[in-house]
Amino acid sequence: MARLTLLRSVRSVVSTKRNNAFSALSVDSMNPNVKNIYYAVRGPIVDRAVQIEADLSNGSTNYPFSDVIKCNIGDAHAMGQQPITWIRQVLQGVVNPSSLPTLPKDVQERARMLLEACGGNSMGSYSASAGLPLVRQHIADYITARDKGVPASADDIFLTAGASPAIVQVLKMNTHGSGANRTGVMIPTPQYPLYSAVLAEHGSIRCNYYLDEENKWSLSREALDKAFEEAEEHCTPRVLCVINPGNPTGNVQTIERLQDIIKFAYDNNLFLMADEVYQDNVYASGMRFHSMKSVCYNMGEPYRSSVQMASFHSISKGYMGECGLRGGYAELYNWDPSIKAEFMKLLSARLCPTVLGQAAMDCVVKPPEEGSESYPLFYFEKRAILKGLKEKAKITAESFNKIDGISCQPIQGAMYSFPRFTLPDKFISDCQQRSVEPDAEYCMQLLESKGVCVVPGSGFGQEEGTFHFRMTILPPKDKMIDCMSRFESFHSEFLQKWS
Amino acid sequence: MARLTLLRSVRSVVSTKRNNAFSALSVDSMNPNVKNIYYAVRGPIVDRAVQIEADLSNGSTNYPFSDVIKCNIGDAHAMGQQPITWIRQVLQGVVNPSSLPTLPKDVQERARMLLEACGGNSMGSYSASAGLPLVRQHIADYITARDKGVPASADDIFLTAGASPAIVQVLKMNTHGSGANRTGVMIPTPQYPLYSAVLAEHGSIRCNYYLDEENKWSLSREALDKAFEEAEEHCTPRVLCVINPGNPTGNVQTIERLQDIIKFAYDNNLFLMADEVYQDNVYASGMRFHSMKSVCYNMGEPYRSSVQMASFHSISKGYMGECGLRGGYAELYNWDPSIKAEFMKLLSARLCPTVLGQAAMDCVVKPPEEGSESYPLFYFEKRAILKGLKEKAKITAESFNKIDGISCQPIQGAMYSFPRFTLPDKFISDCQQRSVEPDAEYCMQLLESKGVCVVPGSGFGQEEGTFHFRMTILPPKDKMIDCMSRFESFHSEFLQKWS
Repeated sequence: MARLTLLRSVRSVVSTKRNNAFSALSVDSMNPNVKNIYYAVRGPIVDRAVQIEADLSNGSTNYPFSDVIKCNIGDAHAMGQQPITWIRQVLQGVVNPSSLPTLPKDVQERARMLLEACGGNSMGSYSASAGLPLVRQHIADYITARDKGVPASADDIFLTAGASPAIVQVLKMNTHGSGANRTGVMIPTPQYPLYSAVLAEHGSIRCNYYLDEENKWSLSREALDKAFEEAEEHCTPRVLCVINPGNPTGNVQTIERLQDIIKFAYDNNLFLMADEVYQDNVYASGMRFHSMKSVCYNMGEPYRSSVQMASFHSISKGYMGECGLRGGYAELYNWDPSIKAEFMKLLSARLCPTVLGQAAMDCVVKPPEEGSESYPLFYFEKRAILKGLKEKAKITAESFNKIDGISCQPIQGAMYSFPRFTLPDKFISDCQQRSVEPDAEYCMQLLESKGVCVVPGSGFGQEEGTFHFRMTILPPKDKMIDCMSRFESFHSEFLQKWS
Repeated sequence: MARLTLLRSVRSVVSTKRNNAFSALSVDSMNPNVKNIYYAVRGPIVDRAVQIEADLSNGSTNYPFSDVIKCNIGDAHAMGQQPITWIRQVLQGVVNPSSLPTLPKDVQERARMLLEACGGNSMGSYSASAGLPLVRQHIADYITARDKGVPASADDIFLTAGASPAIVQVLKMNTHGSGANRTGVMIPTPQYPLYSAVLAEHGSIRCNYYLDEENKWSLSREALDKAFEEAEEHCTPRVLCVINPGNPTGNVQTIERLQDIIKFAYDNNLFLMADEVYQDNVYASGMRFHSMKSVCYNMGEPYRSSVQMASFHSISKGYMGECGLRGGYAELYNWDPSIKAEFMKLLSARLCPTVLGQAAMDCVVKPPEEGSESYPLFYFEKRAILKGLKEKAKITAESFNKIDGISCQPIQGAMYSFPRFTLPDKFISDCQQRSVEPDAEYCMQLLESKGVCVVPGSGFGQEEGTFHFRMTILPPKDKMIDCMSRFESFHSEFLQKWS
């Protein structure tokens, strides 16, 4: 800033003319936290994939494949999954009420109910900042049913445009202090890169805890204790983030592990963030999703009334995959009214989340009832999608585990495999000489030679010296099988080249 | 934090049990910037209005009026304005493509074009973080036409969920430094409270410049120079925000004033933020909207290639009033590719703005063409709404100016009046004794006695010792006339009581 001060004094003495070399906003003069952001899921490999796709659609024959299989992002519709008819019909009814009479009776009823909840009966009016009271109530009812009677209140539900902004705002609430008193946020390794990006943006301190790959990526109290101790040396850990079912790991935590986590949060006075956007995506037989809140509640006192929490859900995942509509919510647990009021202020300045996203969320938490006109199709579509994902989860893990030098934990839930692979020393030293991450280079070569787009493990975090990538299980089954065979041939060619 | 440190040491020595009195997130232990946020447009008066409305709809007869007229927020549909058919039909087509054959041919074409721009031909897939390339191109074409040939590029357009998040993120980019080097942001007084709320949230320094009420709220170079000089004493002013047409003031800046602003920004190396969400709302005869960018471009060098800028637009205002859909964009001007890349990173972590909001924005920037099936109805609806607003702008200002002790500048544009009123000394000292803002108390009494909800001037900022409120011109004409007569009788009763 010496430069600016100098510039100003020169200006005030000599002339009012500005030094053209200086620009108000530049990489040298900007928010340094933004500069620290890195978001792998949309990084250079994805940019290259988009470019190759454009080349191919312009008729390029420069690539040894005819299409790119984009396994880099949990974007179901982009991979051909069809929207759930019920959701889209209700949305049609609310955006254009004059078309209501053409729609099934239960769709009409839901659309009218939603319209009546809106100012001027239009989806074009702002909702309350926390969302439409009707939808908040339906969400609370859904949670209570899902959690087998554990009570939920509409007052604790805050709708947002997808889970991401909810996560951002709750993290912001918890971020304060400076130096050793700066908020530390414990996040898993590997993690979903939204977390690392937002921590960078807020200038809070990233504190990694490690998931146990050999034990199906489960979470142990020991790993948490170790990470906490390390974190305390340079910051004040205040928040613990848990992603369950796991992204990118595909693990599903058991009740016992969740109890451990809650005890740990209680013992260390940590605010718990439960990212549960994959709650509908559990495939492993005998396993089911347990919400962090219900586990905490059922543990009784002192946990039930003490552990503070926010949990997150979204319409982007599950069986609906409505990423583009941007619907999500946070449920707050054990928040004092005074701190809830502060949270409300933060949301108010953004006015409200998209009302159509809220309407879609309403369709998800309150689906057609048995006996209604839309019920049979809704359950047929929902079941078909979840069954397909379950099959692909199995195929993917099994196919990886057949390949030499690749190991993949069972994909118990979510939408991703996160296989581990070994790399020839020769390749690693070559990458080191060129200052590139070996796993990123591996993934770029996979893209360039086979048209398969995955995200390198370094974008999620991984134990030093190990290599992974994240691949979604979203392409249609035949494409997924094609994808695995492309991968297999790439890997064997790669090993030949570098051995 | 002494408490936490103490707590930790006690814990590590004596036991692992946590002190129950301490909670992870509380008003005493939270982000202090969030605590500093105040957002008047949704403050206590609005909360009370919502409560009264609920009482009335539950049959309460405790109020001397039968309905609340909510003139507190620019929420057109909530006040009964009907959606534009063209926009809603296109949205119907994209949310439920199976209904396309029932829609007009040009609607079908647009919906298909938008669907083809989406991954998997579904609005449910994520778009690129900056928005669909197709919509970015249509926006650039719209800007070029609006600005009479001044070039715009799709690469400089970033779609967002309404203008607010775009404003938040651009302000964030510009915020850095500490102490006297902390970013100062020059905002008008009166201002739209999004700005003060976001500055508080980011911990940047608010630097007020005053609009000249007597001169139709115009902006003078003198006022800017004065504010800049004052600001430099305690921070580093880096950003200048201009709202044109003005919120809450309803003024429209002339080309000459915009040139002054650009010269001032250039001379002081300030980043310019041009909030132009009311660009379709100009009512004063002989006046028209000039975009900050086109004025800057047409000034030639050195301004054309030097002044850095972001301008903002939205689907929430204008004639469409689609607040709930959340569509908006920022156009960046004179941003180096390296800093644009940093901005992209910031947007990427939020994934993408709602795709339906983007589709609605597409309908606005590329309306039906002359000769198409939807053209006549579209222009009929658009003209009727803008004509109604123009009439109500005139009625409102004239009615206020007929009342003793009230003066209202002409409402040249936007959707608000911001009349000035004098208050009896007796009332002011009564408020001072009770530690309430006199204008807020006045507005609360207006609500309680007449059911008219407006926002006190103190929420926007006003010259010391003056009193204002903001009232929208959005209720239907007959309601607006009713509203003015309620106000008139309130004001005379009020003066009688306190004189």
